[in-house]
Amino acid sequence: MRYKIILSYDGTQFYGWQRQKDKPTVQKAAEDALHKIYGRAVSVTGSGRTDEGVHAYGQAAHFDAPDRIEPQKLVSALNFYLPQTVRVLMCEPAPDGFHARKSAQRKTYCYDMYYGTENPFLYGRALRLPDAADKDKMKAAAGVFVGKFDFSAFRCKGSGVQTTVRTVFECAINELTLCQSPALRLRVSADGFLYKMARIIAGSLIRVGEGRLTADGLVALLLSGAEWPQKIPAEPGGLYLYSVEY
Amino acid sequence: MRYKIILSYDGTQFYGWQRQKDKPTVQKAAEDALHKIYGRAVSVTGSGRTDEGVHAYGQAAHFDAPDRIEPQKLVSALNFYLPQTVRVLMCEPAPDGFHARKSAQRKTYCYDMYYGTENPFLYGRALRLPDAADKDKMKAAAGVFVGKFDFSAFRCKGSGVQTTVRTVFECAINELTLCQSPALRLRVSADGFLYKMARIIAGSLIRVGEGRLTADGLVALLLSGAEWPQKIPAEPGGLYLYSVEY
Repeated sequence: MRYKIILSYDGTQFYGWQRQKDKPTVQKAAEDALHKIYGRAVSVTGSGRTDEGVHAYGQAAHFDAPDRIEPQKLVSALNFYLPQTVRVLMCEPAPDGFHARKSAQRKTYCYDMYYGTENPFLYGRALRLPDAADKDKMKAAAGVFVGKFDFSAFRCKGSGVQTTVRTVFECAINELTLCQSPALRLRVSADGFLYKMARIIAGSLIRVGEGRLTADGLVALLLSGAEWPQKIPAEPGGLYLYSVEY
Repeated sequence: MRYKIILSYDGTQFYGWQRQKDKPTVQKAAEDALHKIYGRAVSVTGSGRTDEGVHAYGQAAHFDAPDRIEPQKLVSALNFYLPQTVRVLMCEPAPDGFHARKSAQRKTYCYDMYYGTENPFLYGRALRLPDAADKDKMKAAAGVFVGKFDFSAFRCKGSGVQTTVRTVFECAINELTLCQSPALRLRVSADGFLYKMARIIAGSLIRVGEGRLTADGLVALLLSGAEWPQKIPAEPGGLYLYSVEY
């Protein structure tokens, strides 16, 4: 019996999603909770890894349960055993052939940034922008990432991938208020993300805001399909895996 | 040389404002930072105490410094020594006769509440409302607290006060979104607050939302000037000392 679950977590206290020896990770927290529910080991497969310090509003995952339990009861039981920093928002029987990673069609990340004095409520949750970062330049440049490109310039080498071509469906920056601070939220959707791609897109747009790079420069990097040694991933605490669509 | 400072802090990890033996408090954190800056003990006086788990966007305080330091440099030095969960937003030479507690004319608190599935980003930062809590009833009832009343029903007995009469200038609930969750923010301003008064006002309005109390019932309690044994302070994590006016 395969179940699909949606998890929301504050990544601050975790060493990322993936299980590691002797370190708290979100995958381990979920597997530990299932172990307590079922009395035996149950593996949880996520839609992908999130790095240390990265958050999720809607990480998707699946697991194969040894017994049938009513989904709403599973949500309650998981949330009972999970730490408060991880919550299961939804559980349902997985459709036939469903695989949290392989079946994913589209993922959306958000990246939060704020202006002004240091905000203790945003520590580890949003990047503090330099006062000089020009939000209009950043907003205008975000759209250049939309399309099908070889994103070799905007990734770190990590796990092997078959192709570095990805299609970005949406990439836009909106203004909002976060814990009383004026803020920007980057929202980027794609059919998949390369290693650290979302954070490198955010970091590149911040450089555009600082005047150290232009929208045309981003276009040239996108069209080059080459590596970009000067890339800088924005810090992990601003990044949220917002949703995974199937 | 007396300085006035404005502090913002995430109260989750603190045992409240006031210095206690062997426990982390915000006052202790500020005094420890000043000790490092000046090389000797410096006392910090806040506008009032905040309870364990209560937050501040704008707590005001003063201290008497042994030496004159340029205020902007003091902000940087304090923020260097303070933990990331406490930030000094402002520092200025205090006006003549200024006292952070005695000179305060008006204080504003906010109380944050949210609806829907448990949100890990709001753990310790906002109260999760029961689904049945009727926001329209809560919004309509908030206004009954505005005026000059004997707030004996809406306080816990703590430190001795000369009078239990306070004037509430503003008490209103607005809708907003907090970390993707639909939410309500209560905002209440008064010339002063009795012990736990802000949390008891919030707790009472939640009971109104649940249909266990009416706006008329609140009015009767306000006019009685008597104690109210059934009062329940809402949990501390939703409360924020928003500002102190002089």
